[in-house]
Amino acid sequence: MSKKAVILLSGGLDSATVLAGARADGYDCYCLSFSYGQKQIAEVGYAEQLAATLGAIEHRVAVIDIGAFGGSALTDDSIDVPDAKDVCSEIPITYVPARNTVFLAYALGWAEVLGARDIFLGVNAVDYSGYPDCRPEFINAFEKVANLATRAGVEGRKMTIHAPLIQLSKGEIIIKGLELGVDYAQTVSCYRLTDSGEACGDCDSCVLRKVGFSDAGITDPTRYR
Amino acid sequence: MSKKAVILLSGGLDSATVLAGARADGYDCYCLSFSYGQKQIAEVGYAEQLAATLGAIEHRVAVIDIGAFGGSALTDDSIDVPDAKDVCSEIPITYVPARNTVFLAYALGWAEVLGARDIFLGVNAVDYSGYPDCRPEFINAFEKVANLATRAGVEGRKMTIHAPLIQLSKGEIIIKGLELGVDYAQTVSCYRLTDSGEACGDCDSCVLRKVGFSDAGITDPTRYR
Repeated sequence: MSKKAVILLSGGLDSATVLAGARADGYDCYCLSFSYGQKQIAEVGYAEQLAATLGAIEHRVAVIDIGAFGGSALTDDSIDVPDAKDVCSEIPITYVPARNTVFLAYALGWAEVLGARDIFLGVNAVDYSGYPDCRPEFINAFEKVANLATRAGVEGRKMTIHAPLIQLSKGEIIIKGLELGVDYAQTVSCYRLTDSGEACGDCDSCVLRKVGFSDAGITDPTRYR
Repeated sequence: MSKKAVILLSGGLDSATVLAGARADGYDCYCLSFSYGQKQIAEVGYAEQLAATLGAIEHRVAVIDIGAFGGSALTDDSIDVPDAKDVCSEIPITYVPARNTVFLAYALGWAEVLGARDIFLGVNAVDYSGYPDCRPEFINAFEKVANLATRAGVEGRKMTIHAPLIQLSKGEIIIKGLELGVDYAQTVSCYRLTDSGEACGDCDSCVLRKVGFSDAGITDPTRYR
């Protein structure tokens, strides 16, 4: 019998790799993206294309309201996304309050309705050095919530939160993804993509992506402006 | 200095009592309700009125998508809300998958932006006998997530999830609320309210409400059809 999994899919490099890995492990993949008020809404289109290319069973986009609370450069028009070189605080201004908690809560709800017991997300060592809700201890704590919150947990069918990239660098993720057949030209990292789809090359996320390709010794397929 | 708190406010009897209690304890209250695809959307209007009457600083309604996953009689048009006497499974069909996890995740995001470290919700002993995400162990596990997920937690300012009614019966809640000045005519419990605002008297939630008033020895101000 096939196993169902819910995959949090952002359109970026990490979650594309996670989806390819879950497919390779034999999961039937139900991908979930969010329209949450992010300025970079183009990523949702990338997610849709990735879901189709990488063989997902279904892709849904949940429209949610967390951007309304503000407080992040990714959602708040009054806060500019800074260049990577200007990032100095321990928790970046691109951190969106409680984002991964909200995303995982939605994934949990859909998993329960689908009868899935596995949820995948693409947090990794680079992220969790800056974002509190990407740390391994956060993932472990959410897994406990998942097992207490749900019918499945109460009835003894364990829910698992998979973060298969959590110990990997960007370079290691890219090497893994290429082995799995991911076309990284189909992924987007930039927080300030131009209307014609060119990456800025200077934001936090672009710089991490460039370093990742460089470390992996792979040519970066991204179109930079 | 005043303390800010985020209060999950449904428009029902329990969360109204929680709001009144938090105000009595000196909190500046920021109330959060959800339009989540519930058939009984009238409750959001009750919440708005309660927030004003009970002295909240602000009331927000987050429009969210959990109803899209289906799986509950409260959101899914293909599942009727049953009479209380027909409820026999351990977890009622009115259970909405992962609802409290999603609600608390949103409350956490707003709390972080507000700089609040206290979140209140109105789960209680009657609920947690049937809904997995109303149990004390769920609340405790979510509090751990809240402290790991957020900037406040990382920086050592502890987040607390308050469930002040969790050990109380409906009757005890009503007595407590009357002491705090709650007007229960302003609250709604029915899952099948008529267009003119009359409660059905027969659904799970109506029956629990009636028993609560009866146990408390108080006249129920609800208009039943």
